[in-house]
Amino acid sequence: MSKVRVAGFSVSMDGFGAGLEQSLKDPMGKGAMPLHQWLLKTNFFRKMFGQDDGTIGVDNEFAVKSQENLGAWILGRNMFGPVRGPWLDESWKGWWGDNPPYHVPVFVLTHHARKPIVMQGGTTFYFVTDGIESALKKAKEAAKDKDVRIGGGVSTVRQYLKAGLIDELHLAYSAVFLGHGENLLNGIDFPALGFKLAERVATEEATHIVLKKQ
Amino acid sequence: MSKVRVAGFSVSMDGFGAGLEQSLKDPMGKGAMPLHQWLLKTNFFRKMFGQDDGTIGVDNEFAVKSQENLGAWILGRNMFGPVRGPWLDESWKGWWGDNPPYHVPVFVLTHHARKPIVMQGGTTFYFVTDGIESALKKAKEAAKDKDVRIGGGVSTVRQYLKAGLIDELHLAYSAVFLGHGENLLNGIDFPALGFKLAERVATEEATHIVLKKQ
Repeated sequence: MSKVRVAGFSVSMDGFGAGLEQSLKDPMGKGAMPLHQWLLKTNFFRKMFGQDDGTIGVDNEFAVKSQENLGAWILGRNMFGPVRGPWLDESWKGWWGDNPPYHVPVFVLTHHARKPIVMQGGTTFYFVTDGIESALKKAKEAAKDKDVRIGGGVSTVRQYLKAGLIDELHLAYSAVFLGHGENLLNGIDFPALGFKLAERVATEEATHIVLKKQ
Repeated sequence: MSKVRVAGFSVSMDGFGAGLEQSLKDPMGKGAMPLHQWLLKTNFFRKMFGQDDGTIGVDNEFAVKSQENLGAWILGRNMFGPVRGPWLDESWKGWWGDNPPYHVPVFVLTHHARKPIVMQGGTTFYFVTDGIESALKKAKEAAKDKDVRIGGGVSTVRQYLKAGLIDELHLAYSAVFLGHGENLLNGIDFPALGFKLAERVATEEATHIVLKKQ
C-alpha cells in the first residue's frame, strides 16, 4: 500500500535537522554538513556522482531503502532553493543541476505560483500554492500505488507530522551537536501522534531509527 | 584534576531525561523506566543488588566509569524523593534504603532546611538551601581531589550546565521516544557552552555520547 514517508533524514543528537542561515553557499544552513556524513560515504550516494566506491553496509542499506518505491516527492520551498519571496525569474531550477536525483514528480510548497519545470531524467517540479494537504493529494495521485516521500526541510516535515499525514519516518542521528538551527523534535510527541519504534540500528556513523504509525 | 561530571545520564531519542508525574510509584516519572534499560542489564547495576550476573560489555564499562573517582554527589530535591514543599517529618531518607549506592557525601538542593542524615556505607545527605553554586562549593570541598557528580534530575543538570559549571557529560541515548516529560536538551547549546564531542559508542541498548569542555 502506498505510504507517506520521511526517509534518510539526518538529525543531530540535539534534534536539529538543519543549521541557520541557509544560503547558496550553505544549502543545509551553517555547520550542518557533518549531519550527513553517514550518507555521503555510501555507495548509494557516490553512485549519484558516477562513482562506484563508497560503503555498502547498514548506512548504505538505509540510503538505498530511502529511495525505493517512490512515486512522488514533496519539498519545502527552502529545500528547493535559497530564493525567498516571489520568483524574480525562471532561472533557479533547484540545487541539483539538469538531471536531479528524483526521477519522479516533485511537488514544491510555495506561496508564489510558478509554472512546472520539466527536468531531465523524469523529474518535474510542480509548484503548489494552496497548502500541504493539496500538495499531498497531488503527490498521491502522481505516485499511484507507490510511496510519497516528504523530503524536507525541517519545517515541512514538522507540518506534515503535526497534521497526522506521515506514516513512517527513518531518522539518522549523527554524532553531532549543532546547539541551534532548525529543530525537528521540539514539541513533536511521536507516541501521541501514534508512532511506535519499529527499528533501531546503530553504525559507526549514525543511530538509525524507524518510527511507524500503527 | 577534580572534575564536575554528569555520567550515566539516560535520555530518550527526543531528549527527555524523565517522564512527568514523578511519584513514589514512578520515581522517574511516567513511562521513563525503559530509558534505563542499558544500565539495568549491566553487571555493575546487578552487583548493587548482590547479584553477579549482568552484561560486561560497553554498557557496563560506561556504568563502571560513571562511578569511578567520585568524592561527592549533588542531587536535586526531586531526585532525592517525591516529597514536595517543607519536610513534614524526618522519615524520608531517599529512594535507596539504609545503605544508598553513593558511599560519599551527597548534597541535596532544596528550599527547605533539614539536618544532615548519616546513612550506612559512607553516604551522608546534606541539605543545601542557598543555591547551586554553594552546593558545588561544599561538594568540591568534600570531594577534595576527586570528582563531583551531578546526579540529576534534569532540572538540576540544566541549571549547572547553563551556569557553565559542568566539565564533562556522559549521555546514554536509549531507543525510546517519550514525547513529553522533562527535556534535557531544549535550549541547551553545547557548542556555545564550550563542549566538544569526545566519544561516541553505540551498543544494542544505547548510543553513548561523551561531551567534554575544552
